[in-house]
Amino acid sequence: MEKIIDLRSDTVTQPTEEMRIAMKEAEVGDDVYGDDPTINRLEALAAQMMGKEAALFVPSGTMGNQLSIMTHTTPGNEIIAGIQSHIIHYEGGAAARISGVGYALVDNPNTFIYAEDVRRLMRPADDPHFPRTKLLCLENALCDGNVVPLDILKASAQAAWDLGLAVHLDGARIFNAALALGTDAKNIAACADTVMFCVSKGLCAPVGSLLCGPRDFIHRARVNRKILGGGMRQAGVLAACGIVALEKMTKRLHEDHENARYLGEALNSIPGITADMDQIKINMVFWTPEIPGFAADSFIKFLASRGITVYGNLGTQYRFVTHNGIDKEVIDRVITVLREYIASL
Amino acid sequence: MEKIIDLRSDTVTQPTEEMRIAMKEAEVGDDVYGDDPTINRLEALAAQMMGKEAALFVPSGTMGNQLSIMTHTTPGNEIIAGIQSHIIHYEGGAAARISGVGYALVDNPNTFIYAEDVRRLMRPADDPHFPRTKLLCLENALCDGNVVPLDILKASAQAAWDLGLAVHLDGARIFNAALALGTDAKNIAACADTVMFCVSKGLCAPVGSLLCGPRDFIHRARVNRKILGGGMRQAGVLAACGIVALEKMTKRLHEDHENARYLGEALNSIPGITADMDQIKINMVFWTPEIPGFAADSFIKFLASRGITVYGNLGTQYRFVTHNGIDKEVIDRVITVLREYIASL
Amino acid sequence: MEKIIDLRSDTVTQPTEEMRIAMKEAEVGDDVYGDDPTINRLEALAAQMMGKEAALFVPSGTMGNQLSIMTHTTPGNEIIAGIQSHIIHYEGGAAARISGVGYALVDNPNTFIYAEDVRRLMRPADDPHFPRTKLLCLENALCDGNVVPLDILKASAQAAWDLGLAVHLDGARIFNAALALGTDAKNIAACADTVMFCVSKGLCAPVGSLLCGPRDFIHRARVNRKILGGGMRQAGVLAACGIVALEKMTKRLHEDHENARYLGEALNSIPGITADMDQIKINMVFWTPEIPGFAADSFIKFLASRGITVYGNLGTQYRFVTHNGIDKEVIDRVITVLREYIASL
Amino acid sequence: MEKIIDLRSDTVTQPTEEMRIAMKEAEVGDDVYGDDPTINRLEALAAQMMGKEAALFVPSGTMGNQLSIMTHTTPGNEIIAGIQSHIIHYEGGAAARISGVGYALVDNPNTFIYAEDVRRLMRPADDPHFPRTKLLCLENALCDGNVVPLDILKASAQAAWDLGLAVHLDGARIFNAALALGTDAKNIAACADTVMFCVSKGLCAPVGSLLCGPRDFIHRARVNRKILGGGMRQAGVLAACGIVALEKMTKRLHEDHENARYLGEALNSIPGITADMDQIKINMVFWTPEIPGFAADSFIKFLASRGITVYGNLGTQYRFVTHNGIDKEVIDRVITVLREYIASL
Repeated sequence: MEKIIDLRSDTVTQPTEEMRIAMKEAEVGDDVYGDDPTINRLEALAAQMMGKEAALFVPSGTMGNQLSIMTHTTPGNEIIAGIQSHIIHYEGGAAARISGVGYALVDNPNTFIYAEDVRRLMRPADDPHFPRTKLLCLENALCDGNVVPLDILKASAQAAWDLGLAVHLDGARIFNAALALGTDAKNIAACADTVMFCVSKGLCAPVGSLLCGPRDFIHRARVNRKILGGGMRQAGVLAACGIVALEKMTKRLHEDHENARYLGEALNSIPGITADMDQIKINMVFWTPEIPGFAADSFIKFLASRGITVYGNLGTQYRFVTHNGIDKEVIDRVITVLREYIASL
Repeated sequence: MEKIIDLRSDTVTQPTEEMRIAMKEAEVGDDVYGDDPTINRLEALAAQMMGKEAALFVPSGTMGNQLSIMTHTTPGNEIIAGIQSHIIHYEGGAAARISGVGYALVDNPNTFIYAEDVRRLMRPADDPHFPRTKLLCLENALCDGNVVPLDILKASAQAAWDLGLAVHLDGARIFNAALALGTDAKNIAACADTVMFCVSKGLCAPVGSLLCGPRDFIHRARVNRKILGGGMRQAGVLAACGIVALEKMTKRLHEDHENARYLGEALNSIPGITADMDQIKINMVFWTPEIPGFAADSFIKFLASRGITVYGNLGTQYRFVTHNGIDKEVIDRVITVLREYIASL
Repeated sequence: MEKIIDLRSDTVTQPTEEMRIAMKEAEVGDDVYGDDPTINRLEALAAQMMGKEAALFVPSGTMGNQLSIMTHTTPGNEIIAGIQSHIIHYEGGAAARISGVGYALVDNPNTFIYAEDVRRLMRPADDPHFPRTKLLCLENALCDGNVVPLDILKASAQAAWDLGLAVHLDGARIFNAALALGTDAKNIAACADTVMFCVSKGLCAPVGSLLCGPRDFIHRARVNRKILGGGMRQAGVLAACGIVALEKMTKRLHEDHENARYLGEALNSIPGITADMDQIKINMVFWTPEIPGFAADSFIKFLASRGITVYGNLGTQYRFVTHNGIDKEVIDRVITVLREYIASL
Repeated sequence: MEKIIDLRSDTVTQPTEEMRIAMKEAEVGDDVYGDDPTINRLEALAAQMMGKEAALFVPSGTMGNQLSIMTHTTPGNEIIAGIQSHIIHYEGGAAARISGVGYALVDNPNTFIYAEDVRRLMRPADDPHFPRTKLLCLENALCDGNVVPLDILKASAQAAWDLGLAVHLDGARIFNAALALGTDAKNIAACADTVMFCVSKGLCAPVGSLLCGPRDFIHRARVNRKILGGGMRQAGVLAACGIVALEKMTKRLHEDHENARYLGEALNSIPGITADMDQIKINMVFWTPEIPGFAADSFIKFLASRGITVYGNLGTQYRFVTHNGIDKEVIDRVITVLREYIASL
């Protein structure tokens, strides 16, 4: 198979050969009955790596997050979340649709949530005019590629706990965040009661995420998973890849971060293009062209004609994401093609 | 009956003698069958005064607003609203609970919503990642006593219409807003597809609000009113008061605004107390004490002992609201008692 | 005002002169703050008459029932109810729409719910395949005019309690049921944790119902009432009528039952018309014409031309309802007109 | 790996060796972007086999059914379904919880839904008392193992269409039903607008179901799938098994039916055990022991000690399900063990 050059996201990663073999050999059972040994092994491993009592395998990060909200809240409750967070912004309005919760939104320029935001948005109790605030939704790494320092994360979680709120962390890319912060994922997960992370994305498993938390919470989430249609039968074939993702692929994630910096510098070497190196915290590179004639449409089309898949601009910025398919050789090729496009203008 | 001195809100207003007589004499029928002539008369009058095709009587402003959201949207849609708006802030989380809609919240310091806010928060269509933006919720007067200039209101409504959104206006105090803007309520209502206003509050009817809009919308809202339990039988007894409210009480509302300014100036005459005269747009006076020993608890208790009911501070400010029960004589009495309290510190 | 002859339902009853005076004189306050003395008096009276700790005034029977379901359950729960019950059949699908509960429906020919139905429909606990059964919804009198014997009602309630379920009783016409059973309404209410009854309908108040139950339940229902938009301001004007309804009108309800039997016998005196006297438990008379040419449309039109409002047939039967507006003189007039219609065929 | 003998359900089936290889070799892409060629191939194949325009891969039958309900209805609508149907009985109350729809339930002894049931339960339109009936939910094969004759299925679907309703078919085991009816699955699917079927269960794929229907319906279901968290990334690894399931495993399904009859006869050969041969329509065998001392608990434990997994009794009956893991040799072993258990009593 020819190498795919796809810079849109790390969600496009292909399962590794080791995963494909693991999948083929996986011992499986009916997970709706709790009988799939490979699922059980992955859930135990995930719980241990996050420092939580239990874990639940789900088919997507969205389901993991929404299952958590559904299990933490009752309809009419309010959740505190970032206005740009994945839960609010990219999950199709699911929290309102499925769980009937309202949003108290934080809109800081850096997309962080501070302890004072939590205290400010907390609703007074015992007044029927107000919904009941129930849950703080944190995220790390943020879906815009930013990483929240551990002390800020801890402080906002502590503020929530002091107010009697539960805390959920969308850790879809928690291992990227841990790498950026030079800490263990467990320490980030410690800033929340429940945490969701993905074995797909940068870790390359084809499908799946894990929701981790207290044993009784996970038990209730398992019941709710049935309601959302996330109960799968011989899902051990997917879990086998997830185990490889956790045991092996977490160890190579630093390459994606290094390649992102390599790509950022290469972009900066092109006249008229600026990549903000300070903004590169994980595997995402944001850059801005100031070149006459440079246009999203023609740019996408030109790169596609050279076998490179990219997104157009998000506002004023373009985004390239590095992952297992994007090594230095690929990056050099991308830069060459980008120079060709600019020359063609 | 002794005059009640209650400065907490204009929701405490008593029905007038004329209303009580109208109520006693009202011709009534079963409104669930559409047979109540007094209800029908009030609905026709309300529609005409708002420049809309039809109107629906509901037991509260909250029901009027929530019925409108329920009728404009389907679960999972997103509404654009002010973070401090009554719909988001004071209605118990009903929009998420009943209608399952998510919120895109505007958080401007002056609590206005501008056309650019609408355009910024509008979701791209045709991407399953995003909920569908469906409705802009405006408010005038704002529940914090501020009034939105007509051109700003028009511009944000127009921005919504240009994007294919519907527009609802929470006009609980639309006649106060009209007075402050020197315009007819109809011109404010013209900035929205549907508008809710109250005949209780400053207009003194004991119970009731009207939801006004296009005929087919009101027909669907009538069906939804049944679902929310807002279908009342011989509600003409309430509508009789509402007719007096619209025909008579709108004409005296200017007194409340004048009395608010009178009260503001009187407060400013007390050393250590500041009432911001620019903030007095309608019948609400916000003031700040800088007096050693002044405390919400003792303040409330002292005034209560003199027959005056007040709220404590909302943040750093205190709020007094004028209404039909609060004339200049009452205000002088309040100022005297307030001076006594300060002297007692 | 000319006497209205409306046989469609007892929901069309007009407030009595005593109610109109009580309404005019009512002492009122802002009930959202708990400050309305007349509301407080009615709620205390209602609680006492039902043998419950507390009561809450709501604008309609539908809101009372739905508020109860909303407060007893969380979304995804299942309720056991009669397939023909008012809650399932006549409230616009509100239980699913507002509370997100599923239905386990009982479909007995006599519309009763027996203890064995409750036990049969109870879901096994602790299996994620099943929703959680939470609430049994009883009804007495049934909305089809039937009355459930006390021992059957008790047995089904006890079956529910034994299984850990809560029990709600739709007692919209509980005083009619009590009269039919020769017992006190309190004894019917004792077969449920919470009970809703109406002061409108046969008791003639223009608007309003009461939800009664344990103090903490009513407290939570009060919060939910705000969400549904059922919080009204100076609702004491309505409560004043409700008090008259409870203190006076319950004492004359037997007249409606007597008049229903009088009407039934009069109908049977017309050749070709059969009214089943055994089916007359309260104030509802069901009858079947077997007369060539008799048709719902022409029947309705003919009676309307003589100032009598009626419904067409419900299936094969027609229904006449007696109430405060329908005395023996009126019934004689109705029979005369009905004979005229038949003669005209 | 030792052969697993599990008679609880066909959901326990293991992927075949051919599936495991297909999974390992599968060409995959990011299906959330529509880029997974194997998913696209399976969806096209499924649509063609059901005679529908389009199909959507989902992680479970429950999600396929619930996605269909969510896409066909809006909250507050009512669906007509069998009281024992999988959608109502075994999906955790999801239809009420997620879609907010009420149920009009059919409770026939044979669990069929007839045209007259549909007409009887259809709600009158344009009366706010009633919810709007929107969808008929059929099922074939029924989850109790019964199979609906094609003419009855067609008639009830036609009754629904005549009333303006949509029709969804839960065809989790549609290929078993087709086999039992001696027809093509397409002819069963023709009795509905949308149909869900599973490639897991008897067809042995580890995970997955397909929702099939009109192109624009499937487009909207795809958006809703994102909301439920059913959007998976490189799901082609699962789809590869699904293709084998459809192309190969449908051809051997008749063996399960034959083995079910073989098992039924073998059971009848044991004194005191009765298996109703007429009840064996697909791969499910129901039998009743009348043997002193025979008890579910000891029966389960005894068989488990011999490596055979079974359920206890469902009411008075026991159920054995045949599938790819249960050939005649296995059945003989089961009968032997069952005789041993009985001898031990």
